[in-house]
Amino acid sequence: MADYQAPLDDIRFLLKDVFKVDEFWASLPGVADVIDTDTADAILEEVGKIAATAIAPLNHSGDEQGADWNGGDVKAPAGFKEAYQTLCEGGWCGLGGSPEFGGMGMPKSLTAQVEEMIQGASLAFGLAPMLTAGACLSLLNHGSQELKEKYLPKMYSGEWSGAMDLTEPHAGTDLGIIRTKAIPSKDGTYSITGTKIFITWGDHDMADNIIHFVLAKLPDAPAGSKGISLFLVPKFHVNDDGSLGERNQFACGSIEKKMGIKGSATCVMNYDGAKGWMVGEPNKGLAAMFTMMNYERLAVGIQGLGIAEASYQSAIEYARERIQSRSAQGPQNPEKSADPIIVHADVRRMLMTMKAWTEGSRAFSTYVASWLDRAKFAESQEDKTESDGRVALLTPVAKAFMTDRALETTVIGQQVFGGHGYIAEWGQEQLVRDVRITQIYEGTNGIQAMDLMGRKVLGNRGEWLSGYIKEIQSYAESVSSNDALAGYAATLIAEANSLSEVAGQVADQTANDREAPGAAAVDFLDLVGYVSYAYMWLKIADAASQQDSDFAKAKLKTAQFFYQRLLPTTQSLRAKIAAGSDSMNLAAELF
Amino acid sequence: MADYQAPLDDIRFLLKDVFKVDEFWASLPGVADVIDTDTADAILEEVGKIAATAIAPLNHSGDEQGADWNGGDVKAPAGFKEAYQTLCEGGWCGLGGSPEFGGMGMPKSLTAQVEEMIQGASLAFGLAPMLTAGACLSLLNHGSQELKEKYLPKMYSGEWSGAMDLTEPHAGTDLGIIRTKAIPSKDGTYSITGTKIFITWGDHDMADNIIHFVLAKLPDAPAGSKGISLFLVPKFHVNDDGSLGERNQFACGSIEKKMGIKGSATCVMNYDGAKGWMVGEPNKGLAAMFTMMNYERLAVGIQGLGIAEASYQSAIEYARERIQSRSAQGPQNPEKSADPIIVHADVRRMLMTMKAWTEGSRAFSTYVASWLDRAKFAESQEDKTESDGRVALLTPVAKAFMTDRALETTVIGQQVFGGHGYIAEWGQEQLVRDVRITQIYEGTNGIQAMDLMGRKVLGNRGEWLSGYIKEIQSYAESVSSNDALAGYAATLIAEANSLSEVAGQVADQTANDREAPGAAAVDFLDLVGYVSYAYMWLKIADAASQQDSDFAKAKLKTAQFFYQRLLPTTQSLRAKIAAGSDSMNLAAELF
Repeated sequence: MADYQAPLDDIRFLLKDVFKVDEFWASLPGVADVIDTDTADAILEEVGKIAATAIAPLNHSGDEQGADWNGGDVKAPAGFKEAYQTLCEGGWCGLGGSPEFGGMGMPKSLTAQVEEMIQGASLAFGLAPMLTAGACLSLLNHGSQELKEKYLPKMYSGEWSGAMDLTEPHAGTDLGIIRTKAIPSKDGTYSITGTKIFITWGDHDMADNIIHFVLAKLPDAPAGSKGISLFLVPKFHVNDDGSLGERNQFACGSIEKKMGIKGSATCVMNYDGAKGWMVGEPNKGLAAMFTMMNYERLAVGIQGLGIAEASYQSAIEYARERIQSRSAQGPQNPEKSADPIIVHADVRRMLMTMKAWTEGSRAFSTYVASWLDRAKFAESQEDKTESDGRVALLTPVAKAFMTDRALETTVIGQQVFGGHGYIAEWGQEQLVRDVRITQIYEGTNGIQAMDLMGRKVLGNRGEWLSGYIKEIQSYAESVSSNDALAGYAATLIAEANSLSEVAGQVADQTANDREAPGAAAVDFLDLVGYVSYAYMWLKIADAASQQDSDFAKAKLKTAQFFYQRLLPTTQSLRAKIAAGSDSMNLAAELF
Repeated sequence: MADYQAPLDDIRFLLKDVFKVDEFWASLPGVADVIDTDTADAILEEVGKIAATAIAPLNHSGDEQGADWNGGDVKAPAGFKEAYQTLCEGGWCGLGGSPEFGGMGMPKSLTAQVEEMIQGASLAFGLAPMLTAGACLSLLNHGSQELKEKYLPKMYSGEWSGAMDLTEPHAGTDLGIIRTKAIPSKDGTYSITGTKIFITWGDHDMADNIIHFVLAKLPDAPAGSKGISLFLVPKFHVNDDGSLGERNQFACGSIEKKMGIKGSATCVMNYDGAKGWMVGEPNKGLAAMFTMMNYERLAVGIQGLGIAEASYQSAIEYARERIQSRSAQGPQNPEKSADPIIVHADVRRMLMTMKAWTEGSRAFSTYVASWLDRAKFAESQEDKTESDGRVALLTPVAKAFMTDRALETTVIGQQVFGGHGYIAEWGQEQLVRDVRITQIYEGTNGIQAMDLMGRKVLGNRGEWLSGYIKEIQSYAESVSSNDALAGYAATLIAEANSLSEVAGQVADQTANDREAPGAAAVDFLDLVGYVSYAYMWLKIADAASQQDSDFAKAKLKTAQFFYQRLLPTTQSLRAKIAAGSDSMNLAAELF
């Protein structure tokens, strides 16, 4: 398999030429002080090296060996602990963390790139720093000063890791029905009892302590999702001097045998009167979780992107080297018995599809990350409010559309390899198995679509969507005097108009049919995704049209491919949504 | 996971009500003598029982245990040998075999159903009887009487199995460049030397002997695909009395670690002066292979169908039992803490999609099988010629479209399970891993698309396609007086017209652009697939509209779903094809 290389050229092009982060970062108080493009370059290069040389080489061996649970504690696969320490010693685990507690305070538009490189090198590995960062975010935003001082510095440094404990055997999507109990103790702590499942890196030997954030119910909690509280539950208690004390009353009961991400441990966690500290207000645990959810959901989309990039890199290399059959134009490689398969149009169609989705995803995640930065750092409340809306609207799209396209991309990458794509040693099949989880966890992609359609679009009568559509159209108009872009701009304006109409259509359907939003949701999310990527590809083409290089030529050709060979899918999505829910109203017993 | 059950109700409905095999079988000399619907019923029930009780229970354990190669011979997973013997002792391995040599002479329209049940129960297992049947077909059609008498009876009985040895490390799609040599010996046999890879069940302990059919080149063979010959190479030599003699000079050199079908052995076979017998004419080995290829490629499509059916059965059961969140209509299950997830429109959308693809595939494979029967058994040469054309046209569609939809279906089936879909013990993830190979082997789906677009459509100026389109339109017109069907019939007529136009459009593009067929191929195959399934769903709806039952109601609702929520994809396929190849003309070094 090809050696993974961090896609630094594309990342730099996006940051500097497409999103002009020089100006953007300088405009944000708090960001301007910590980062400029030179510093960013140095960070990207350094983490890129770690990703390529310390993490990527563990991906296949980690899959083969798997995380090991021997009835007691979990051992990560060989090399994982050392790589984790290498990553954290560079300070990269606290890259986006609060400087008040030892983090580097970097904006998401930069950390998103770092995340992609780590996840692209190994998803099983990358889950550990990602979940730690998410846990830190919840703690930072909702924990007491005491808890923050005690835990954040060592979590940012990577000495301790974090884990999120939400799911129970009977409660996944529907967290309102969890059963884990938290009984108040006299000293102000809580005694936690219950079983959590699907806890990623819930136990391991890569860090000295593991800080769990556990959703549980107080004895007097109201039923449903308004009766859930969040608790910090460390594996080892922490003494006042910061040293580790006794082991807490919980343990990993087993780990799952999974389709992929086998190098990571997916734990059943049994809490048996474990001592925990409440984070945030009683019964407001879900709200505390939602704080980190926009970050985590974007991060899952970025996982898809990273894996898709890895698949693309391998597929290009293979398509250039594997010789099989002759070009339709006649032999291109007459001295050999056949031509490299990249000469075949259908193989290039596959590679162009991978390229268009992957680079489009990288642009989209950077775009969404920049709205997270505005929401966090902008000066005016108006700016923050607009940004919060855009983030809320686009987060489910980033999570679901990026991961759906990532499965599509890795399946194509495997197909380019023919029979070898099915064989473990070539690496492509692992990427398909690994990426598949990104469509499922952190809220299935169907749940993302319901969130978009229900809460984010119908819930505010399309206000957030309208703002986004206006932005797209205003941008498209602004570049339509450029001859190279005029055709795409006109298409994008029409697509954006249609999107607005379709949202109105679903609202109309809903007036008479409560099933309409659910019936439309997945196709609608796809529609927003296609239009969003069309927006990204116009931005990319805009920047590329101002350059003269092979890199820029390839970008323009890929934009053409996106508009001609991928975007037309919107036609059928609109027709499907227009049909409403009637055809799926079949009684349960008739299936 | 749900226990696999053979879908006998749907098979009976298709055979009797949709395809009216009573009349069809009676009209074919050679078929009328061996089968009627009562006999078919008995066979289906019996094999259905074996599939459900003897084969399906081995699927998960076979995946976990895997085929075992210990440096010598291969051992199948526990239970496989017994199940193989059970299957063969019933005579089911020779079901479609020639009665002259002990086969049962059944038509493909019946054996296709039997294949689905076996493959649906376990693909890893089902590959053994399938490859044996394919090997028998090549031998029957091209081997000498002596070879046929010596080998066929014991292969039909299942005492011996068959394997097909085509691929070499450097030669997969492009068999013209194989290097395995066949040197003539004085006794009329050949000495075979070379390495073959990806040989499914190339070695195992389920049968007493394994008969390999090996492609190799004679010393004076012309270069390329016109210099390939086919050889029968038994693992153990067969004495004149039929007993087994010495071991032949070849062995399994290793087995592959694969994404799925782990219960089957995928062998590297090393031939070191092995003794072989030529099958057919010198240098015409590929032609001998093509005889079985239409059967094998349909059989691979049917593998996809079988696995998709298994995924669908599990998904329905899970969706009825798993409770999570409330219906958009308000609580449907108020005594419990949540409703079964089948109440959610998006879950029903997933299940309806699975149902529409799976039942559509079953109809389509039965339809293609009936053309194979006409090609083989019809009395008039005219009928045979028409049938050969229809089979040639639709075989690549059956192979590629059925398996692509099967991946889509199993991925959805996994998604219905949420996080549990990713965990091995629930069974859904194995189906995704297993089904993925069906898109790759027996000619990748991209190769199928090139075959369809190039040889089967452009190659004869659309003659075969026109015949098919006329059949579709004439059928659609014949049912358009039925009010329940008129709308679908009109849509189908329009779709078929468009299909004809698109074929003409690609022909026009090709006049100026040799890359056009390759650029259009995959989308064009999908287009033919969608229109074919629309044809099938109209036939199904036609039969269902004449019945009054829950089963018929579900069929009509699913037809509506297919026409409203799946078929509109043709709109975007047409737009993509119209764009031609220009957007994928990027130089290899610019990717």
